[in-house]
Amino acid sequence: MKKIINEPANVVPDTLEGLALSDPTLVYSKGFEVISRKERREKVGLVSGGGSGHEPAHAGYVGKGMLDAAVAGNVFASPGPEGILEGINMANNGKGVLLVIKNYSGDIMNFDMAKELAEMDGIEVESVIVKDDVAVPDSTYSTGRRGIAGTIFVHKLAGAKAEMGGSLAEVKDVALKTIENIRSIGMSMSSCILPAVGKPGFTIEDNEMEVGMGIHGEPGVERTAIRPSKELAEILVSKILEDYDYIGSEVALMVNGLGGTALMELYILNKDVHELLESKNVKVYKTLVGNYMTSMEMAGCSITLLKLDDELKELLDFPCETPALKL
Amino acid sequence: MKKIINEPANVVPDTLEGLALSDPTLVYSKGFEVISRKERREKVGLVSGGGSGHEPAHAGYVGKGMLDAAVAGNVFASPGPEGILEGINMANNGKGVLLVIKNYSGDIMNFDMAKELAEMDGIEVESVIVKDDVAVPDSTYSTGRRGIAGTIFVHKLAGAKAEMGGSLAEVKDVALKTIENIRSIGMSMSSCILPAVGKPGFTIEDNEMEVGMGIHGEPGVERTAIRPSKELAEILVSKILEDYDYIGSEVALMVNGLGGTALMELYILNKDVHELLESKNVKVYKTLVGNYMTSMEMAGCSITLLKLDDELKELLDFPCETPALKL
Repeated sequence: MKKIINEPANVVPDTLEGLALSDPTLVYSKGFEVISRKERREKVGLVSGGGSGHEPAHAGYVGKGMLDAAVAGNVFASPGPEGILEGINMANNGKGVLLVIKNYSGDIMNFDMAKELAEMDGIEVESVIVKDDVAVPDSTYSTGRRGIAGTIFVHKLAGAKAEMGGSLAEVKDVALKTIENIRSIGMSMSSCILPAVGKPGFTIEDNEMEVGMGIHGEPGVERTAIRPSKELAEILVSKILEDYDYIGSEVALMVNGLGGTALMELYILNKDVHELLESKNVKVYKTLVGNYMTSMEMAGCSITLLKLDDELKELLDFPCETPALKL
Repeated sequence: MKKIINEPANVVPDTLEGLALSDPTLVYSKGFEVISRKERREKVGLVSGGGSGHEPAHAGYVGKGMLDAAVAGNVFASPGPEGILEGINMANNGKGVLLVIKNYSGDIMNFDMAKELAEMDGIEVESVIVKDDVAVPDSTYSTGRRGIAGTIFVHKLAGAKAEMGGSLAEVKDVALKTIENIRSIGMSMSSCILPAVGKPGFTIEDNEMEVGMGIHGEPGVERTAIRPSKELAEILVSKILEDYDYIGSEVALMVNGLGGTALMELYILNKDVHELLESKNVKVYKTLVGNYMTSMEMAGCSITLLKLDDELKELLDFPCETPALKL
């Protein structure tokens, strides 16, 4: 197994400790596998999390203007309610806490349990569920659409609203509005290797890709020959536009790498997506290109579009300072 | 070939166009393959560049507080003197231009020719050569040590000095001081695929890594079984400490991914490097973890240490705003 790790059982705490050591504004709660902000301010707390293996998600988005705490489960496994409760406690500064949950059954169950526990402790908690992946209606680990890279826009915009002093209801409204206007779809060209397993979970032939594959290797919509970037852009963007009408709108665009794809390729895809969107009268207001929501070393990418109005633009432009995103 | 590209011959212009589309502060000079800052200020200009395939280097470091222009050659090939001259022209605002060159024979030849051409046009040009890789004394494409990820610290610190209004001589002095105090070493676990070739340039066995391999796949010092992260940290850090005495000093640390290695692994390695440095009384003042100088989708990493004094700390802490680094 070609991985830079120590004991496979320790990859999650080792990763979070390594992250906290890279950023002095963060605190790592060992045992709970929570990364939170050192600085506590009287504001609505924002908590997210989920299985590990998607780095920098979610711990890399903890910081000013985004999350207050992120809770990490084992690789591709939901965190337990105790960890999530610790995350809520670390994020709670008396103004309530919003949970941003990706739509996977395990995450929803455990975040809901933690929410109940926190409410018994007198903390006001709300939650939203991100389901941005247009690929399939239901999936291996989810009823309804999966939550993928679009989640980072929810962190960004709800995080800005919280940082600006919004109430819990207002921050939740921003999160819901963002979720409503986001669509994503991905494609994979290789499997990744779970540290505890030591070999690929599946294989894709040398000349093949799978359109719509999930970030845990869940089945997509189509296995097909690898296409030139221009055609790939057409395939991915058209699946998004079939689902939601972005024509004539201003959007934020994310071209996300799954971890094993060269940045060169993401930039090339970005060019083709930009040209395609322009030809369809979709105006790109802001672009993010990079590895934002990965599947460890999986080769592949995803595209996310978020429709913007003046409110969302202001929130997108509000500064954030996290290990993985500074705007 | 599992790459998101169009024509292999066009990967460089497509990449640079995609980068420029992601950041409205940048300009792309097509044909010259130069990325430069839209905003022109009366300051010393800073220009770097080299072969493509190391994204985000170097075009991703163009922006406030770092480079004024970056010139891209073909994949793993030096840019020609015309492109470099265009970079100098785009960076020149009447206060002189400093060229930051990685120590590869082709780069030095072409940057030197461009320097002469610019001087004939009346532009004052100085240059520095980065040779931070302690792995081998000479290499396939270099006489003397290779220049690798440490180059980004040179961009950062010399860029800060230029942004603060330093003279050409002062900016060059900062670059030289940085170069003097930087050491790096890498290791690779897989080959990358050149778009124009379509297959791996070499193979590494499933359980092997090559310590000290160059960012173009140049031979390293040792091919050995893959080690746990803790041992890898020992191997890499000890090679650096054998070469330069960082004991008792404050340092900037970069844990760099070569493009195909998961961020999780880089964080794990960061933890082990931090603990090791602490045990050796090397104090880490600032840490960068990410894909800063890649070999496309190569799996592997490098470690860079930079010894800091008050002047270098101030320059490191000075803000920068580029696609690949915001501090």
